[in-house]
Amino acid sequence: MRKVYLSNTPRREALDIFLAGVNIPRRMETVSVSEALGRVTAEPVMAKLSMPGYHAAAMDGIAVIAESTFSASDQNPLALEPGQGFINVNTGNPLPPGFDAVIKIEDLQFLDDGRAELLAPATPWQHVRPVGEDVVAGELIVLAWHHLKPPDLGAILAGGITKIKVLTKPVAAIIPSGSDLVKPDSSIDHGHVPDFNSTVIASYLEQWGLTPIIKSIVPDDPDQIKAAMISALDTADLMIIIAGSSAGEKDYTYQVISELGEVFLHGVATRPGKPTILGQINHKPVIGLPGYPVSAYLSLEWFGLPLINRYLGLPVPERPRLTVTLGRRVVSEMGVEEHVRMTIGNVDNRYIANPLTRGAGVTMSLVKADGLLVIPGNSLGHEQNEEVEVELYKPENELRHNLLAAGSHDLIIDLLATALKKGDARLNLSSAHLGSMGGIMAIGRGQAHLAGTHLFDPESGEYNTPYIRKMLPGQDLKLVTLVYRMQGWIVASGNPHGIKSIVDLVDTEIGFINRQKGAGTRLLFDHLLNEANLSPTQIKGYEREEHTHLNVAAAVAAGTASVGLGILPAAKAFGLDFIPLIEERYDLLLSSSFQKSPEAALLLKTIADPMFQSEVEALGGYSMREAGKIIEIYKV
Amino acid sequence: MRKVYLSNTPRREALDIFLAGVNIPRRMETVSVSEALGRVTAEPVMAKLSMPGYHAAAMDGIAVIAESTFSASDQNPLALEPGQGFINVNTGNPLPPGFDAVIKIEDLQFLDDGRAELLAPATPWQHVRPVGEDVVAGELIVLAWHHLKPPDLGAILAGGITKIKVLTKPVAAIIPSGSDLVKPDSSIDHGHVPDFNSTVIASYLEQWGLTPIIKSIVPDDPDQIKAAMISALDTADLMIIIAGSSAGEKDYTYQVISELGEVFLHGVATRPGKPTILGQINHKPVIGLPGYPVSAYLSLEWFGLPLINRYLGLPVPERPRLTVTLGRRVVSEMGVEEHVRMTIGNVDNRYIANPLTRGAGVTMSLVKADGLLVIPGNSLGHEQNEEVEVELYKPENELRHNLLAAGSHDLIIDLLATALKKGDARLNLSSAHLGSMGGIMAIGRGQAHLAGTHLFDPESGEYNTPYIRKMLPGQDLKLVTLVYRMQGWIVASGNPHGIKSIVDLVDTEIGFINRQKGAGTRLLFDHLLNEANLSPTQIKGYEREEHTHLNVAAAVAAGTASVGLGILPAAKAFGLDFIPLIEERYDLLLSSSFQKSPEAALLLKTIADPMFQSEVEALGGYSMREAGKIIEIYKV
Repeated sequence: MRKVYLSNTPRREALDIFLAGVNIPRRMETVSVSEALGRVTAEPVMAKLSMPGYHAAAMDGIAVIAESTFSASDQNPLALEPGQGFINVNTGNPLPPGFDAVIKIEDLQFLDDGRAELLAPATPWQHVRPVGEDVVAGELIVLAWHHLKPPDLGAILAGGITKIKVLTKPVAAIIPSGSDLVKPDSSIDHGHVPDFNSTVIASYLEQWGLTPIIKSIVPDDPDQIKAAMISALDTADLMIIIAGSSAGEKDYTYQVISELGEVFLHGVATRPGKPTILGQINHKPVIGLPGYPVSAYLSLEWFGLPLINRYLGLPVPERPRLTVTLGRRVVSEMGVEEHVRMTIGNVDNRYIANPLTRGAGVTMSLVKADGLLVIPGNSLGHEQNEEVEVELYKPENELRHNLLAAGSHDLIIDLLATALKKGDARLNLSSAHLGSMGGIMAIGRGQAHLAGTHLFDPESGEYNTPYIRKMLPGQDLKLVTLVYRMQGWIVASGNPHGIKSIVDLVDTEIGFINRQKGAGTRLLFDHLLNEANLSPTQIKGYEREEHTHLNVAAAVAAGTASVGLGILPAAKAFGLDFIPLIEERYDLLLSSSFQKSPEAALLLKTIADPMFQSEVEALGGYSMREAGKIIEIYKV
Repeated sequence: MRKVYLSNTPRREALDIFLAGVNIPRRMETVSVSEALGRVTAEPVMAKLSMPGYHAAAMDGIAVIAESTFSASDQNPLALEPGQGFINVNTGNPLPPGFDAVIKIEDLQFLDDGRAELLAPATPWQHVRPVGEDVVAGELIVLAWHHLKPPDLGAILAGGITKIKVLTKPVAAIIPSGSDLVKPDSSIDHGHVPDFNSTVIASYLEQWGLTPIIKSIVPDDPDQIKAAMISALDTADLMIIIAGSSAGEKDYTYQVISELGEVFLHGVATRPGKPTILGQINHKPVIGLPGYPVSAYLSLEWFGLPLINRYLGLPVPERPRLTVTLGRRVVSEMGVEEHVRMTIGNVDNRYIANPLTRGAGVTMSLVKADGLLVIPGNSLGHEQNEEVEVELYKPENELRHNLLAAGSHDLIIDLLATALKKGDARLNLSSAHLGSMGGIMAIGRGQAHLAGTHLFDPESGEYNTPYIRKMLPGQDLKLVTLVYRMQGWIVASGNPHGIKSIVDLVDTEIGFINRQKGAGTRLLFDHLLNEANLSPTQIKGYEREEHTHLNVAAAVAAGTASVGLGILPAAKAFGLDFIPLIEERYDLLLSSSFQKSPEAALLLKTIADPMFQSEVEALGGYSMREAGKIIEIYKV
């Protein structure tokens, strides 16, 4: 078995090596200016004609010879003869030969005999647009390597140019590899995954100004990979092969590129993105991207974008940066540059950023990301509450309208997000699944606007208030009931293990799947154990944790667990059975500053909206009977 | 003659009236996810399948039953039997039924008999990607009215969805009107102008997510305009008619819209953009845009973009803002909201902004603009050196690389801009034509990086240094020679007036066209007058000013002036004759902070580059014989 070890080349060094080793030779083509939006000029564009092409009236009125009007005044009105003395002009008309000024229609009076009467003289060239005022022949309109925007096209056409030379879009061949891959529109069997990476990569390349071509999927077979690359070489200026770039038994990309051409580098000191291969075949650049989606997209951006922008003569865009406070600790391994996707929101005039799931396979972390925290190789990461600088995926003024929801996960938070966006298109509710306890603590640290919580206190029989009073004593918070919801056992269809209550899980081989520490649902399970005088060690799978109701249901559906505790819509999403157990109250805790904001007013209005309430209840297992009720946290 | 008076409705009020009066009803269509980049979702997208769809190996290695490995240790290696004890897996493979952990290939050893030897136990579910780790069935992937970006498409495909509902792109009919308009690709006769506005407007609308259709040009004739609008109504969701929106004799847009439908508003209290008409026909929105290009594009953005973004459920994007110091005074009329296009650059860690030409007809002011200064109706404007906030057209980090050139205009500054960009793609040399004196003063105020200057001092016979010593005593500046260039008389082909020297211009009807005050070329002309003991009053046209050599040549070419003083390439651009007069030195003055920057080093390297020098000399009338020479300003 051949052993390949990946190098740990720093990212910037890897880019320098790649750019020094390959080049896409510039080609140009002629296009109509009217179709040149977004293209990049191949040479400077100079005006051929002037705009206007003649001295033109800038107002509606009459053209005059200024010198002939010098005697006009209030006391001595001057009457000009039509034809020789004046000529009617409208805005844009050429100034008649011999005339050198325009008098506005408002500043004169026509006499009955057709003469025009003036009460003031005209100064030479008044209200005249001189030839070339906009664009003058010979003037540089845009430089070479200029990314064409709408007004550029106007100025170029105004300069009498209808066709221009632009840089030809390079062709990028995308070769998806992997024996488990199927086309996204196929029906997906067990053991197969849809090739969604090719679509994402093609979309990025299109945005960056290339022509992407997605080739057929090739299996993990060196001969077939080789054949695919040789065939792609004919038309492509750049080749991108997805997956097979690591050092495993079935990873052939390295071998194939080194046989056909040259590998400059295998392995970048980043996470995600490490198993990247950079090389060339016939002097054409080849990028071997990792198969995990986040790794692939980041690696493409690091190495593909600078290559294409060098071709286009454009600078590599720098993302805007923002100083944020970390809502959670973010650790990092020494020697590896970590790229952590973050959500960002503004709480109490501070930007708070929280890390999203860091797995290289989690595309959703890029979908949800507002920014990126890059932790250099010589850092062990950052502590909670530390100030760090992040790169922004969205403009800062968009982030200002992000609402940070922390705390417990419920599917109706997604409905709420939709409803809030309908009320104010700028609002974006982004939720971190921290569990009820985590949400209350995030509010306490000033790191969230609102938090969902459903914590039952057996002693008082109350929901949420005893925990809030204890964890955040004396804070000026508002607690609002959102919904009553049914918790129950999520089991396979037909309930094969006949689960009815918690005692059915004790000391059996029936595998349970738990929620994470601090989650209200986990506390509920612990409460049930306690009530029945049971110990966690009696439950097989107690230590196996998932972060959402849906993920619990997914584990049951996949057969790796037999039962989980959760809500009805999660069971329904997977066609599972649901054994109702207890109805609980789910409240929203609003932070002190947020509760006074217009966004909070919209939130309360939305919760009270009958349309929204009936949408929620239609999901099943929900009652909105006290929705919007304000709960006193501190009894007077 | 019908008299129409325009209203002075504030812009935001006008927008509210428009949005209250019209609506584009939402329509949706189903598209392939692979073709949905940049489209906007019509409904929330929920995952149908989980990704991965099964528990999968996250590493290359072996699948094991964790419990069976608990005894393994350094001291007590454990050997597992293939098949029952372990199964080989590669990254992404489904976990075989009954197995619950993966051991990495690096952490085990295969014995000769095929058994796998472990030195440590596996914990349950280690190196396993649980089902739904990326996307879980039922999970919300993106909200309704979400603008789709590349990773969104990946997550949607990963969630088992290949077709989605997106909002249909509304159709916008663009009707260009004006009897003087011709299609941009026609040959342009005297009195005609190419219709470039339609292309620009269509480009904006395309960027904003509409399908624009450019209709045939209609002349200034109410019946033909009416017919064009009626025909457009069939297919269009939004109608845009360009020009004819003011109150002149030939402005029929108001009349036609009010006959076919309803005019909400005619006249917005802005400059440019005032003659805008907002109305509806058959409940479809109609925008009558002004004919001047800058007015038209700004008005389209004010009223068209919010309309389309309301349709798409997107917020109206707010441009980032930046506090800048004004390099020049910007006056404004009370009661009118002024929109002034600005160039922006960073000099000495201060952002300096200068207004571009304010004419509503100057498309180039939008091409060159880095930002926009909006002066509210209740302000009379701002003083030089005042700090103001501008809206940015480009990201701040791009502006940081702008080089501000002030001072004299020469065509080779454009060549220099191209050459600098080749050296560093981020560099953007933007020049304000302030004349030599204006340039020196801008350097003195810390408002430019470099300034071109060609001021001859008759007393000392020196160029530039006497002026700099007098105007900026004791400052640490660097003066570098760029070029020697020929100044001469620019006259019509064949030199019909037989001009040989300045005396030929005295007390005749031959019209001269002058340069603006402070321009080196104007000082040269004054010096010639002085040498010949002549007075400005003896020169017809002395008070008529243009700001560039090309504009002087354009006036001569158009026949509104007979002679101007300028450089050879300007005469060549218009096929005019050139009577050489004097060779002068053109230097670049570098500010104190700029001269130490890497950009200044690149500038000096570029000037010294033989390629650049031969490009300049190929223009004619230039000698680079002392290019790059440093001139001592303060003699020791």
